[in-house]
Amino acid sequence: MFTVSIIGAGNVASHLIDVFDKHPEINVLQCYSRSTSSLEIRFPKVEFVHDLKQLQKVDVIIIAVNDTAIETISNSIFIQDQLIVHTSGSMPMEILQPHERIGVFYPLQTFSKNKAVDFNKIPICVEAHKKEDEEFLYTLGKLISNDCQKITSTQRKALHVAAVFVNNFTNHLYTIGNEICEQNNLDFNILTPLIEETTSKIKSISPLEAQTGPAKRHDQKTIEEHLHFLKTNSEKNIYKLLTLSIQEHVKKL
Amino acid sequence: MFTVSIIGAGNVASHLIDVFDKHPEINVLQCYSRSTSSLEIRFPKVEFVHDLKQLQKVDVIIIAVNDTAIETISNSIFIQDQLIVHTSGSMPMEILQPHERIGVFYPLQTFSKNKAVDFNKIPICVEAHKKEDEEFLYTLGKLISNDCQKITSTQRKALHVAAVFVNNFTNHLYTIGNEICEQNNLDFNILTPLIEETTSKIKSISPLEAQTGPAKRHDQKTIEEHLHFLKTNSEKNIYKLLTLSIQEHVKKL
Repeated sequence: MFTVSIIGAGNVASHLIDVFDKHPEINVLQCYSRSTSSLEIRFPKVEFVHDLKQLQKVDVIIIAVNDTAIETISNSIFIQDQLIVHTSGSMPMEILQPHERIGVFYPLQTFSKNKAVDFNKIPICVEAHKKEDEEFLYTLGKLISNDCQKITSTQRKALHVAAVFVNNFTNHLYTIGNEICEQNNLDFNILTPLIEETTSKIKSISPLEAQTGPAKRHDQKTIEEHLHFLKTNSEKNIYKLLTLSIQEHVKKL
Repeated sequence: MFTVSIIGAGNVASHLIDVFDKHPEINVLQCYSRSTSSLEIRFPKVEFVHDLKQLQKVDVIIIAVNDTAIETISNSIFIQDQLIVHTSGSMPMEILQPHERIGVFYPLQTFSKNKAVDFNKIPICVEAHKKEDEEFLYTLGKLISNDCQKITSTQRKALHVAAVFVNNFTNHLYTIGNEICEQNNLDFNILTPLIEETTSKIKSISPLEAQTGPAKRHDQKTIEEHLHFLKTNSEKNIYKLLTLSIQEHVKKL
């Protein structure tokens, strides 16, 4: 039986408590949050504490809070020889020093409140200062996910940057698409099959090979018409910059 | 029984012949392509012609060729009182004049060679100069798709611009994500669950509400680190511009 304690009561923390709590080989011993949280009712088996001094020694303490709060919390934990990890894609592992047994347990997914996720399909990226802690995190990750990988800090940073492009920025392009639809009395859902096909295509061919559209075709007439159609400078600039970047990339094909 | 003839032998043309050919109420009478095409073997019931003068009168002739070739082909068809449509998202319907019975039959999807599509799920946007032709195109569209809509030329242009953002540009962000992974010895597939969740989220909430990430949080430290991490000016500029645009948009929330 593995013992785990979770720091935090946000999206990542609550999804982790949920998946660990359900697993027969994992015992979520304690959960720390600053104030009383609704999670206390959801997880009656877990002891909720509001003072970091009450934390007991476990196999791993997982700090699943905002990036900016990780260091302060880590500095307030005084359990000897305790493995402490955070779940952030962007923070260095070393932020957890002077603790000696430190690591990262990074689920590569975007979590929303009240939206269930299938942890089995979420890649878990682990890293630790000590070899045996890395092995432990890898074993723990494997219990809840089919895709657990040992990666370096540099790889984790690369993944986080890539995730901003394929998740945050892509979502913003959907926002722009949605606006264009609304301004023209069109239901955004009409674009759903196209969006799904875009995602589906890159499972069988590389995104560079999958590229289509006026930019790739150097269809200057359509490009000009689209720029004329767009209302804001921000949209026009995004259109121009991405068009240029596509053309630079397809040259390499 | 509806009679249809198709002009072209590319991706859109071949997918249209395929779905029409399978439908018991639609007869694909003729297909025109400049030179002999592999489609002639695939569709033995269809008569393939290589001279536009050989085209016979049918319920509708669908010109499914590159945007730049539509006008020339339309001007070479001399059948009286013939409904002629094109399948382009960006070309005006009027390009088919001086024909009087003109229209558009625009499947809103990205088609690839050798990749089957489920036409039932593809929105078909129809438009015609004459009311009765529009009704006919609507009926024809309904036979092959669950989502056939009558839209105006302006709406079609809006959809095409929006499609560039949610399909072409999104795919290019995948290309950049892929490059970052390759440069760091990471398998791009590790991002697949994140990409799928991004697409899935916007089915239940608006993309603006679904927005997450350092830009939305105004997490300047992470933004600076990501910009430092990126290698090319093109990637840095895309990162900056989309970050700024996200921040402008979430202000409206």
